[in-house]
Amino acid sequence: MDNIVKVGLLGLGTVGSGVFKTLSNFDNVEVTKISVSNINKKRNIEGLSQEILTTDSMSIVNNSDIDIIVEVIGGINPAFDLITTAIKNKKHIVTANKELIAKHGEEIFELAKKFNVSVLYEAAVAGGIPIIMPIKMALAGNKISKIAGILNGTTNFILTKMTNEKADFEPILKEAQELGYAEADPTGDIQGYDAAYKIAILASLAFGKRIDSSLIYREGIDNISAVDIEYADDMGYKIKLIALAQITENDKVDVRVHPMFVSKKLPIAYIDGVLNAIYLKGHPVGEVMFSGPGAGEFPTASSVVGDILALAEEIPYTDNPLPMLKCKHEEKAEQLDIKHTENKYYIRVSAQNTPGVIGDLGCICGRNKINLSSIFQKGILADGSARVVLLTEPSKEEAVQKAVEEMNAHSQVKQVMNVIRVMD
Amino acid sequence: MDNIVKVGLLGLGTVGSGVFKTLSNFDNVEVTKISVSNINKKRNIEGLSQEILTTDSMSIVNNSDIDIIVEVIGGINPAFDLITTAIKNKKHIVTANKELIAKHGEEIFELAKKFNVSVLYEAAVAGGIPIIMPIKMALAGNKISKIAGILNGTTNFILTKMTNEKADFEPILKEAQELGYAEADPTGDIQGYDAAYKIAILASLAFGKRIDSSLIYREGIDNISAVDIEYADDMGYKIKLIALAQITENDKVDVRVHPMFVSKKLPIAYIDGVLNAIYLKGHPVGEVMFSGPGAGEFPTASSVVGDILALAEEIPYTDNPLPMLKCKHEEKAEQLDIKHTENKYYIRVSAQNTPGVIGDLGCICGRNKINLSSIFQKGILADGSARVVLLTEPSKEEAVQKAVEEMNAHSQVKQVMNVIRVMD
Repeated sequence: MDNIVKVGLLGLGTVGSGVFKTLSNFDNVEVTKISVSNINKKRNIEGLSQEILTTDSMSIVNNSDIDIIVEVIGGINPAFDLITTAIKNKKHIVTANKELIAKHGEEIFELAKKFNVSVLYEAAVAGGIPIIMPIKMALAGNKISKIAGILNGTTNFILTKMTNEKADFEPILKEAQELGYAEADPTGDIQGYDAAYKIAILASLAFGKRIDSSLIYREGIDNISAVDIEYADDMGYKIKLIALAQITENDKVDVRVHPMFVSKKLPIAYIDGVLNAIYLKGHPVGEVMFSGPGAGEFPTASSVVGDILALAEEIPYTDNPLPMLKCKHEEKAEQLDIKHTENKYYIRVSAQNTPGVIGDLGCICGRNKINLSSIFQKGILADGSARVVLLTEPSKEEAVQKAVEEMNAHSQVKQVMNVIRVMD
Repeated sequence: MDNIVKVGLLGLGTVGSGVFKTLSNFDNVEVTKISVSNINKKRNIEGLSQEILTTDSMSIVNNSDIDIIVEVIGGINPAFDLITTAIKNKKHIVTANKELIAKHGEEIFELAKKFNVSVLYEAAVAGGIPIIMPIKMALAGNKISKIAGILNGTTNFILTKMTNEKADFEPILKEAQELGYAEADPTGDIQGYDAAYKIAILASLAFGKRIDSSLIYREGIDNISAVDIEYADDMGYKIKLIALAQITENDKVDVRVHPMFVSKKLPIAYIDGVLNAIYLKGHPVGEVMFSGPGAGEFPTASSVVGDILALAEEIPYTDNPLPMLKCKHEEKAEQLDIKHTENKYYIRVSAQNTPGVIGDLGCICGRNKINLSSIFQKGILADGSARVVLLTEPSKEEAVQKAVEEMNAHSQVKQVMNVIRVMD
């Protein structure tokens, strides 16, 4: 049998180019065909022959010479059609497409099972950081109970810069856009959609239960201000956009994406700039963390190529390569509503500078069975109003929402400015 | 074919028990035989039948029913004989034995290649942290150029406690021994032998070149004092025992274990207590870091079981399971002598409190072509002597050693108290 495994590459953008360049170092893999949108575009890629380019992606997934289809186009269409057709043609799949796996993983994995092929997607979560394979293999003996990730580089870059420069959100977003770290329409990153796709993929895998990404509670970072970051720092925290997934006592799954106060005692607090990190808790392993570059041409290529090489080493020897990396058909997770979760909270209130306010805020919390760990006034503003900051013990989200409503209705409260959950 | 894979377990101590308990959750693996030193010892392990115990390890490696031998005895003898016999009997090996792999990896891997079996050793480095499989698989597309690890939990625990309590080495070592975090004879940990085995294994794998662990330069942590830690903190560093391995420009390999000033800008500086971490730099991935528990019953069991399950999933389908995880026969690395390395240095000098001393120390550095980034006096001691601290730019180790000699010979210098390399 020919030991050279043949790859069809769908897409030759940033990631595709990185994959092509990296694969050129390995002689057991050959890129046979590449689909591009513009065949005449000038490309400066060493070893790339014009003849293997085509604009017809479908011809690649139907090419009987090809063993592995590598999809780095992104988006749902036409990626979904191309991948499902490739699977029906008994080709293994390597993809970096988080949106596709998060939204259509179930159908794709079922189809792959039927046709006995592997679908690998290391690059779909956290770019260059090995996380999918470690969960499936090295950590396979574990019952994983919690994942906390910094899974979006754009928002981590913005929050880090806001922290370092004591700046507010808007100017730093603008700067990030100018530097190319944020897109012209930054909604997908800023509002947590991107992180939600990724945590849906990780949690589905780690818990063995399918997570519906559309049901994930999301809060973006646009409501974070320099003041919140300053107070966080004073109290021993950094603010991070955290993608959280945990198994509850009654075996429900609590998955969400929102900013958090992260204790400076936790190593994940020091994952700054565009870096990503995944913290994972399981038994028997305990707690582990993986960190590194979450995006970019080369880091993403590293993960795509890792998947390709893993398949390429096994394909010559077996009709069932990497059974351990195959996705099992999973039951549907019962996802917990945010209002039934329990968290510690930071609450920042703008109030009139009158003697009774702090007491009243404390009473509102007490009435709602929220234990406070501290409440204090932080400076007087130019307009004479006072900033009051509350920090709670673990409390029901529902109770906190109700307390915030009551605070907002209080005659001496101007507004509850922010409510941020806390990770210790 | 029977899909239940049969395991023979050598050793039922802390790790062995953890492995047995964890494997009981998986029905594709059966522990058929276990060797113990005392068969009559009272053991409280659920599901353990007395009949599968034996004191005769050799009978297990010669048992034709068994597919995988799991060695968690440790040490060289009899582990080496048992493993080589098992390989000759065409059994796959899973081991947690760092000393064995570091010292006899070459013979073992060659034998395994000859008999076409896999030898997996995820648990031999950094306990529960997945690092061997990620290097071999997810990062397989990379050319790795640098590894920096905190690979010994005992020394990290001691250094962390010295930092938090502003204490010297001796009392904290004693405390660590009382808590069971350091052994009665702590030499293996304190002097860096343990970390040297582990970095030898990691570097051999990552660079594809065999490292001789006996040639690794080692310095322990017993020379670190509370004063060094305090100065480090002032200058934005923490002191960590770092196992370092890097490829030099002329393709030599620079491997060593010694304490380092680690910049607080690096996430690895925040890996505290008994935790381990591995920082890794490669192309295309860039920089990634893995952290978690480096030892203990359950974390180590997590890695051993991960290896077992990976084999167990493939064994029913192929005679060549996990070809990607097989050790390639590697060329011997050319290991760089410490004196030819280049580093930044922290140098602490005890000198007489006279005006010319700082100038003279600066001159000694200048003469030896060592650029200083700072030199300053740090307090006067009770005996009237002054502490002078120097921080250098990247300089040749050989030049620094010569400068230190000259400093020690200087009439107004009492002694060079410590020289610690710096990681920024």
